[in-house]
Amino acid sequence: MTHQAQLTIKTSGRGTVDITRQLNDVVRESGIEKGVATLFIHHTSASIIICENADPMVRQDLENWMLRSVPDGDPIFRHVAEGPDDMPAHVRSTLTATSLTVPIINHRLGLGTWQGLYLYEHRTAPHHRKVSVTILG
Amino acid sequence: MTHQAQLTIKTSGRGTVDITRQLNDVVRESGIEKGVATLFIHHTSASIIICENADPMVRQDLENWMLRSVPDGDPIFRHVAEGPDDMPAHVRSTLTATSLTVPIINHRLGLGTWQGLYLYEHRTAPHHRKVSVTILG
Amino acid sequence: MTHQAQLTIKTSGRGTVDITRQLNDVVRESGIEKGVATLFIHHTSASIIICENADPMVRQDLENWMLRSVPDGDPIFRHVAEGPDDMPAHVRSTLTATSLTVPIINHRLGLGTWQGLYLYEHRTAPHHRKVSVTILG
Repeated sequence: MTHQAQLTIKTSGRGTVDITRQLNDVVRESGIEKGVATLFIHHTSASIIICENADPMVRQDLENWMLRSVPDGDPIFRHVAEGPDDMPAHVRSTLTATSLTVPIINHRLGLGTWQGLYLYEHRTAPHHRKVSVTILG
Repeated sequence: MTHQAQLTIKTSGRGTVDITRQLNDVVRESGIEKGVATLFIHHTSASIIICENADPMVRQDLENWMLRSVPDGDPIFRHVAEGPDDMPAHVRSTLTATSLTVPIINHRLGLGTWQGLYLYEHRTAPHHRKVSVTILG
Repeated sequence: MTHQAQLTIKTSGRGTVDITRQLNDVVRESGIEKGVATLFIHHTSASIIICENADPMVRQDLENWMLRSVPDGDPIFRHVAEGPDDMPAHVRSTLTATSLTVPIINHRLGLGTWQGLYLYEHRTAPHHRKVSVTILG
């Protein structure tokens, strides 16, 4: 059986948005007990990550690592027409994930205790981001 | 329903090859309207990425970031028998993606407007690369 | 058809554990000839990678690159309650993969000749890690 849904997630600029609950809602709607949920973000400057969900500092530290490793306004970047944070956003997307597949176990996302699902906005300005969920089982 | 196909992609050395059209051809052949296409590259020195498809400079800037962050001939690497670009190719593969899952929506890959699917060759010499596509829906 | 299994993998601290054989055992048990195996690790400080399986030096060099690029005890990290290797483990997990999808071809994982599947432990202490395998086909 195949169930498909699309979500629109509002971001408030660079940083993470917890989408775990919304994704579990889609899993419940599908009625599928055992299978997988595949997530896909339709953008190249935002991504989907699984990250520790207890201490928000973890995601801030991840952001600090990104800021240092893929600096905004880096002079090696020549694709700069859309601003100093645009090309870094494309690199960050490539280093993280555009698609993720999570098992469905007993009608729920089979996440570990400390795992949350986050949309990671890499642009500094707020955006509306489209995420597709395809459930197979 | 499950449909499987294998593609052989010729690369001209380090850089990206657009494989979006070939993958959409496989989706069309499958006859599947709604589901997912899972892509897998059978190599550890080339990868599959989703990247901005409008300005080729984006992929050149990504390559420049890789060149600086995972330098060829880096003295920390000891696996050097196959040349100074071999171990960097393995690291780049790990940082990007060996597998990707893309939703199929209305008989087509559900890519965003600015998303293209690329094979990313990390070796400096040309290669033939094998990619498997498994379509489920 | 959907087949699901859970594995517990014992690690001896930071480094890789070859899980290719165990995963092929699950594929064989499933009886599925053609489809995909989706792997998912239920942790945010260990990951699953596909890497060159011939020369163990490749995985040591990858580890050396990680040690330099995501240093333990890095002063930019403030999430330090669980030790100097904890936050680097979360960053490494984000840079590598929490989920992977591998095609099943003729009742086996369709890996390339030089591809092995590894659990990559990022913490310095030994752990028991849970991996789910969902097979669809």
